[in-house]
Amino acid sequence: MSKKILVVAGDGIGPEIVAEAMKVLQALQADGSIDVSIEDALIGGAAYDAAGDPLPAETLEAAKASDAVLLGAVGGPKWEPLHISKRPEKGLLGLRAGLGLFANLRPAILYPQLADASTLKPEVVAGLDIMIVRELTGGIYFGQPRGIETLPSGERKGVNTLVYTESEVDRICRVAFDIAMKRGKKVCSVDKANVLECTEMWREVAVKAVADYPEIELSHMYVDNAAMQLVRAPKQFDVMVTTNMFGDILSDCAAMLTGSIGMLPSASLNADGQGMYEPIHGSAPDIAGRGVANPLATILSVAMMLRYSLDAPAAAERIEKAVSQVLDQGLRTADIMSEGMRQVGTAEMGDAVVAAL
Amino acid sequence: MSKKILVVAGDGIGPEIVAEAMKVLQALQADGSIDVSIEDALIGGAAYDAAGDPLPAETLEAAKASDAVLLGAVGGPKWEPLHISKRPEKGLLGLRAGLGLFANLRPAILYPQLADASTLKPEVVAGLDIMIVRELTGGIYFGQPRGIETLPSGERKGVNTLVYTESEVDRICRVAFDIAMKRGKKVCSVDKANVLECTEMWREVAVKAVADYPEIELSHMYVDNAAMQLVRAPKQFDVMVTTNMFGDILSDCAAMLTGSIGMLPSASLNADGQGMYEPIHGSAPDIAGRGVANPLATILSVAMMLRYSLDAPAAAERIEKAVSQVLDQGLRTADIMSEGMRQVGTAEMGDAVVAAL
Ligand SMILES: CC(C)[C@H](C(=O)O)[C@@H](O)C(=O)O
Ligand SMILES: CC(C)[C@H](C(=O)O)[C@@H](O)C(=O)O
Repeated sequence: MSKKILVVAGDGIGPEIVAEAMKVLQALQADGSIDVSIEDALIGGAAYDAAGDPLPAETLEAAKASDAVLLGAVGGPKWEPLHISKRPEKGLLGLRAGLGLFANLRPAILYPQLADASTLKPEVVAGLDIMIVRELTGGIYFGQPRGIETLPSGERKGVNTLVYTESEVDRICRVAFDIAMKRGKKVCSVDKANVLECTEMWREVAVKAVADYPEIELSHMYVDNAAMQLVRAPKQFDVMVTTNMFGDILSDCAAMLTGSIGMLPSASLNADGQGMYEPIHGSAPDIAGRGVANPLATILSVAMMLRYSLDAPAAAERIEKAVSQVLDQGLRTADIMSEGMRQVGTAEMGDAVVAAL
Repeated sequence: MSKKILVVAGDGIGPEIVAEAMKVLQALQADGSIDVSIEDALIGGAAYDAAGDPLPAETLEAAKASDAVLLGAVGGPKWEPLHISKRPEKGLLGLRAGLGLFANLRPAILYPQLADASTLKPEVVAGLDIMIVRELTGGIYFGQPRGIETLPSGERKGVNTLVYTESEVDRICRVAFDIAMKRGKKVCSVDKANVLECTEMWREVAVKAVADYPEIELSHMYVDNAAMQLVRAPKQFDVMVTTNMFGDILSDCAAMLTGSIGMLPSASLNADGQGMYEPIHGSAPDIAGRGVANPLATILSVAMMLRYSLDAPAAAERIEKAVSQVLDQGLRTADIMSEGMRQVGTAEMGDAVVAAL
């Protein structure tokens, strides 16, 4: 049966990189490897400009009716003056909440062909392969009460609330354990249990849940130490699981260890396997429209989509191999360019992946 | 007039490293460079063991009556099973709150003699000199409500609250601006203004406060991007200012960029210039009592103390020069040992600094 994909290209380089990912999807469709129908919709600043809302109701409805959503990127300086409730980011957060995408998978993988791009010494990062599992629909991102109030003194006070229930923690830990079972079977749960009661509870729930996974080796680390250890010896990690806010910070730190965030995809899943897929890099307004952005993270997001939401692991693997092959061929977009390689634009890179399929 | 110093050695390697710092203080006292009286008191696990409380009332009183506090380190696995209210960390948090130490200064400096210790490529970190100014008595560390409650369903819910008032943000930003005026005049304020209203207000307050500092170049960065940029190009930063929680994470990340956290001191100041000084590394229970810990971060904390609380900048500089000199001599504790250098223990390193004074 045909699967439905909703494409929301968003802002900045979003439309350019999504266009290349579409070529890949279409090529797989054409040769019969997958059977998908594709629609598109507005999100982020583009949606605000067209409809006054970073997440129009039709977009959320269309997303709910899809098996998977492919997102480019949202945001840009143009929309920064807007009230927080109208900013492009709200569109993204609204989709996460609206679809219940509680599990954010962010791999930090170092491609051997791009080892030089890292700012870390080769021996520290060679072979790096971490999967960060970030809780995505709870925590301080969504907790109530929140907002800015004026005190009787006339002074303002800003408040946000970190809140988790046991079941929210339990389900994200189990996602991490399930993923680790297919990898190195090691999970490091990151918290600040020595200061924040909420994450003290997080730790207790993780310990309880792992009882159902006798093969998993679960460890715990305070978030400050985790940030240190990512810099000191990142290869000690297999799977990391953590809160929404800590995951936001640590996954970006981990991604940058590879030196090539233009290469890193992500998946955001709900309990039904429905998912949203997007590159971890942003909308890069400074290079938007110039045809130089790296489409590989978006193309690799398609691979994650095929694996996690469309039940097409073989096609996913073909994409991943094709990407590796174009790197072997020496093709590089500007962000990953190095001496002796051939610099190509967004479209040429997309075409090369299609050819390598 | 004689200044009062309270020494709280704490747990793990605390007593050993503080002993070396004491030698340095005593040497400066003996040659007339400073005029101090020194007392000591219990804190952390040691205080819990002796008095059932990680911050006995007498310790807090003695701290309040001092011009400065020198802290070793607190914590260790022995006390992890305790309730969060009795853990060693609570002693530290209680001192911060009790003395109103709202400004935490955490330098991340790469010593040229130790450039090899970094996991980052030399060109990325050579000459690194960042000052992280972390808000220390507010934010999610201290916000109410907090705790774990049981819902009617029987499920538990954990809560912590991120809260800042405008005046709390204003005063920490001004500390950062004042420090930057004596350095590169660049301040990067780190927030998550695109998601957290509390830090949206933070950004607004920072912008308002900088109007009084026409020479300061203020920029803003989201915390996830800041974690990335610290790994990608840390030398872009001069002074960073941020919340308690973000500062905890980013300062440890920044410290580890140097590869030698055994070298890094910190200061925590209140509005009256009273301060607590401590190495940024922890209590290292695994090496405690073996005489191998690096005392230099604690000795450099004494230098910060002389500069910020005891009005003795010349003596501070002598300590810093002496430390640099022992490194030039090739002396290294185990944590910073490298080929061709001479490995020494805690006491020998302390003695060498005293000799180099
Ligand atoms: C754009 C922003 C709201 C978002 C987040 O903080 O979750 C982004 O940083 C990410 O990590 O996907
Ligand atoms: C020990 C702990 C409470 C403390 C903190 O989180 O502030 C430590 O990590 C630090 O940074 O000084």
